[in-house]
Amino acid sequence: MRLKFFIFIICFSATLGSLKGQSSMLSKLGYTQDARLLIIHADDLGVSHSENRASIKALEQGIVNSASIMVPCPWFPEIAAYARANPRADLGLHLTLNSEWNMYKWGPVSSRDSVASLLNDKGYFYASVDSLMATGKPEEVEWELTSQVKKALDEGIDVTHLDAHMGAAASKADFLAAYIRVGRAFQLPVLLDQRVFEIEDSEVKNLIDANTVIADNILSMGPQDFENGADQYYRKTLKELPAGLNVLLIHLAYEDEEMKAMTSGHAYWAADWRQADFNFFTSETCRQLLVQENIILISWRELRDRITRNK
Amino acid sequence: MRLKFFIFIICFSATLGSLKGQSSMLSKLGYTQDARLLIIHADDLGVSHSENRASIKALEQGIVNSASIMVPCPWFPEIAAYARANPRADLGLHLTLNSEWNMYKWGPVSSRDSVASLLNDKGYFYASVDSLMATGKPEEVEWELTSQVKKALDEGIDVTHLDAHMGAAASKADFLAAYIRVGRAFQLPVLLDQRVFEIEDSEVKNLIDANTVIADNILSMGPQDFENGADQYYRKTLKELPAGLNVLLIHLAYEDEEMKAMTSGHAYWAADWRQADFNFFTSETCRQLLVQENIILISWRELRDRITRNK
Repeated sequence: MRLKFFIFIICFSATLGSLKGQSSMLSKLGYTQDARLLIIHADDLGVSHSENRASIKALEQGIVNSASIMVPCPWFPEIAAYARANPRADLGLHLTLNSEWNMYKWGPVSSRDSVASLLNDKGYFYASVDSLMATGKPEEVEWELTSQVKKALDEGIDVTHLDAHMGAAASKADFLAAYIRVGRAFQLPVLLDQRVFEIEDSEVKNLIDANTVIADNILSMGPQDFENGADQYYRKTLKELPAGLNVLLIHLAYEDEEMKAMTSGHAYWAADWRQADFNFFTSETCRQLLVQENIILISWRELRDRITRNK
Repeated sequence: MRLKFFIFIICFSATLGSLKGQSSMLSKLGYTQDARLLIIHADDLGVSHSENRASIKALEQGIVNSASIMVPCPWFPEIAAYARANPRADLGLHLTLNSEWNMYKWGPVSSRDSVASLLNDKGYFYASVDSLMATGKPEEVEWELTSQVKKALDEGIDVTHLDAHMGAAASKADFLAAYIRVGRAFQLPVLLDQRVFEIEDSEVKNLIDANTVIADNILSMGPQDFENGADQYYRKTLKELPAGLNVLLIHLAYEDEEMKAMTSGHAYWAADWRQADFNFFTSETCRQLLVQENIILISWRELRDRITRNK
């Protein structure tokens, strides 16, 4: 997920946490209001072998405790095999409606004719969320998202949650309604935060209920943070983590030939960015900070089972 | 192309050259009957970044003088960009009806609904040619092959020829007829050899005429050759190259993490095989052998323009 596009619903920094009042998630989960819960979440699994390899290594080291998978991507079978072999891994789906890199492309899970409004003239997903927003039909968005979930379930993945690659599935009210509906259809939590309450759309409002997981804060490094130093950003983010349910979105890969070529022409979220994320989230520094700050790691599976499915 | 599947039309070794008489290709091209013409042809461009990178390097070193591109594969945009920037490169299409690796998959260029008989229940091309032969409808084969050619032309590639990944497009008489028809529709030579004359199929026979390029020998390393040593196989092949129009099919990539993961679970045509091909076909040994043996390199572009298009 690349937050610059996550127009409606994503908080850009932890400071927004202070705008909000009590955390209903903390109450529902049985924590006091000063508890600092965190999901350290790797996006983009399946996009490349490098991303899979680095993300799996970080998940197995134990700091990164959740991740989501891009079903339409070429390396999906590799991560699906990992998920089947590791059924306790907390793996959701990074619902994908864009193919943003220049030299390496993918298209939909659905038949192209059935989701033509989501595709460019080469049959790939659009590179930008803007292009998707301009032509995408909400019913085709819903069809494609549903196809992605069905395919992952058919592959034997115990899907713990849904989120939205580049925020595309949440970029317009009617896409957002489709995204939430798909979550409800499969009894899966979808990544949302408090901003969902600000959306003046009756369909969206009607889809929110007591079983809806709504994060207090969604955090992610932005371009300026990266320019200032990834290490510095992540240390500060963990030290200043607000109370409540926090989701920190990161992107792990190696800065290798595959990844450098895949991300060529992109200044941000590229191979060097992902290597920096990997380095920090497999470091002893990070592990110690989590302990020092009394940060409680929580998984999407727990949220799914306790809140969405109310077990 | 993996020759073990190329059931009907491909000669497996140079020794078959001796079964044939005069080479009509040599005559048409104005060579005497003792001339040893050779296309050193890299297959599978577009399949991965590693394959693209190694194949481009070998093409630019000048021994490998032709290659073909897999249009449905994820890294197609990278090789298409190379083709546009290097319009003299001799690049054809490796028409693709299979997705044979375990952890990394692709599907058709056409809308899935329109070529459903070519796809497995996950929406990918079948891993094996046998599965494709069992269910594939020839009209859907022709539609998909046509879609691949159109897409490559739309991308601005000056397509010099067509050939068949894993021999799939030539694995049955009705597929073979479709493959040849697609070549004729775009005035492109398709890879065929003398065995095409042995096929008892009137449709195929009617598609062969004076403008059809038919190689005298198609050569490619097999598993036993690889076990005995790639270097030894290629030295022998070049030293014993028969007179006539010869096409030597090779597969170039680096034995890197991407390629090892992509080819995992396959004993042959895997990362080590492709690194061995790269090593030999960028070596001074190979260059000297071509000179010593008076081997004449010829391109598909020349065959296309002089024979297929009769310029």
